[in-house]
Amino acid sequence: MPLDYLSTLSATLRGIQLARDTDLADYLIAPDPSSVRLTRAVAGVDHNGDETTIRVVEERPLTIFLNSQEIVTAMTIGDYPAYLALGFLRNQGMLRDDEDITGVDYDEELETVIVRTARATDYEDKMRRKTRTSGCAVGTVFGDMMEGLEGVTLPASPVRTSWLYALSARINRTPSLYLEAGAIHGTVLCRQDKPLVYMEDVGRHNAVDKIAGWMLSEHATPADKILYTTGRLTSEMVIKTAMMGIPVLASRSGFTAWGVEIAQQVGLTLIGRMRGQRFVCLSGEDRLIRDADPAKVADEPRKQGRKGAS
Amino acid sequence: MPLDYLSTLSATLRGIQLARDTDLADYLIAPDPSSVRLTRAVAGVDHNGDETTIRVVEERPLTIFLNSQEIVTAMTIGDYPAYLALGFLRNQGMLRDDEDITGVDYDEELETVIVRTARATDYEDKMRRKTRTSGCAVGTVFGDMMEGLEGVTLPASPVRTSWLYALSARINRTPSLYLEAGAIHGTVLCRQDKPLVYMEDVGRHNAVDKIAGWMLSEHATPADKILYTTGRLTSEMVIKTAMMGIPVLASRSGFTAWGVEIAQQVGLTLIGRMRGQRFVCLSGEDRLIRDADPAKVADEPRKQGRKGAS
Repeated sequence: MPLDYLSTLSATLRGIQLARDTDLADYLIAPDPSSVRLTRAVAGVDHNGDETTIRVVEERPLTIFLNSQEIVTAMTIGDYPAYLALGFLRNQGMLRDDEDITGVDYDEELETVIVRTARATDYEDKMRRKTRTSGCAVGTVFGDMMEGLEGVTLPASPVRTSWLYALSARINRTPSLYLEAGAIHGTVLCRQDKPLVYMEDVGRHNAVDKIAGWMLSEHATPADKILYTTGRLTSEMVIKTAMMGIPVLASRSGFTAWGVEIAQQVGLTLIGRMRGQRFVCLSGEDRLIRDADPAKVADEPRKQGRKGAS
Repeated sequence: MPLDYLSTLSATLRGIQLARDTDLADYLIAPDPSSVRLTRAVAGVDHNGDETTIRVVEERPLTIFLNSQEIVTAMTIGDYPAYLALGFLRNQGMLRDDEDITGVDYDEELETVIVRTARATDYEDKMRRKTRTSGCAVGTVFGDMMEGLEGVTLPASPVRTSWLYALSARINRTPSLYLEAGAIHGTVLCRQDKPLVYMEDVGRHNAVDKIAGWMLSEHATPADKILYTTGRLTSEMVIKTAMMGIPVLASRSGFTAWGVEIAQQVGLTLIGRMRGQRFVCLSGEDRLIRDADPAKVADEPRKQGRKGAS
């Protein structure tokens, strides 16, 4: 069965009407589901014993170095390795916003990225403390997870509920690896009702790190941004969002208790279970401007329910 | 709104008919959604601006020591800390199956578990190599992820498709933290058509490690077991299953390319996208005995579609 047929079928099965070009016009970076490097066709048998071929997402190691020091090996789909490295180091507090980055060298064959800074770095001690975090796909957070959050104060940027509804509708209709192959997470950097940078990865933490890397490279201001994720609102996601200085984190998935607790501590607006006209806000509700009438928002038919990559 | 009503509602919304006692009779360990320690009631506001209270799963740190050495801090819902510690160490190759375990001390206040062995252990070198893996919620896999898989040969235990259909139906109807609060993963150790040990955790890797810990404690034989997970079939899940000596891994979620590759290398039967009568087998199909007629298996109405904890 030809793959283009399969992917069209999978999108159709999910009952998702794909976006019009006008919906995609705003994206600075959108998913590239057609990229042959990100998915692989695998042959198998189905429930009837018939041969079938499905597309599955790639998952490859990427070892991140900061100057001469090996920091971590991440499992990633492999797009935007430089953004992933920069964002991971930034969110771990190993790179400063004003860091003088003298080079980022990616070697596809060796599966390594070396980030070079003018400043001499040494995080041996920091790396000795390891925390396995929850949230879909690993986050290895070195050192005290709350480290660096003390200084964080998030701006009181207002958020219109009409933006949230528009973002959710547009993002769910955007062609993506998720619609193509599933088993992947998406995180989207947004401004008002416009999705700007849509990253996907096997690990949700990678998707958000790639966005952090893009922001660092582009010197993007976080104050007027909204972060949307397909995944759960765990402590790790909340901490990363706060570390990035973004005041609002929204998801169609659920919460963990510690994620909520940290969001309340740092004053982050945390919105979850966002489907159709519904959502729940468990922190920072003061930023919300309720300019949209939920009753006028089409609720998601179950068949359009986008499942998270579990 | 009272919580018991909320949880009933959430189950109803998912259109899930809960299991009859006879379905639960086989469980040696079943989820305890009523445990006050595992979920927390959090107040917030909904899309209409009305106050609402929802239950969210807990997420707390647990630091695992092997003798005098601190190995890792895991984020977990906090049930079965001893099984989690034993299983994590076992799946990391730090405990042997015939290990002489002289003690497991859990300190709830300090949030630590200390596993003591008669053998002197030292994994400093092993711990220097870190890999962030994908798969829902972290897996920090120390050392070479493939390490220890060379020796693995999985038994040619036959698997009846009627067992797979029965397991999937029973597990999805079993009262769980997922049905209560969502945002959590489940992994179930099964034998033939009977689910035996059903573990849940914010991290899917924790759920499977808790099962490995239970198996180690009970000296359970893996050859006749089937592992069912709600999460994606990533390299980490496949490696852990193979490390446990279990020949079959089934999931209602999708695959990653490397997960499939490793399953094929070690000869693990890998079944994914299992919903209603449908499933796809991408590795080890030779173990399947097709004794069930898929056409006679009720397909999942979309409203019964259980979403993974993303």
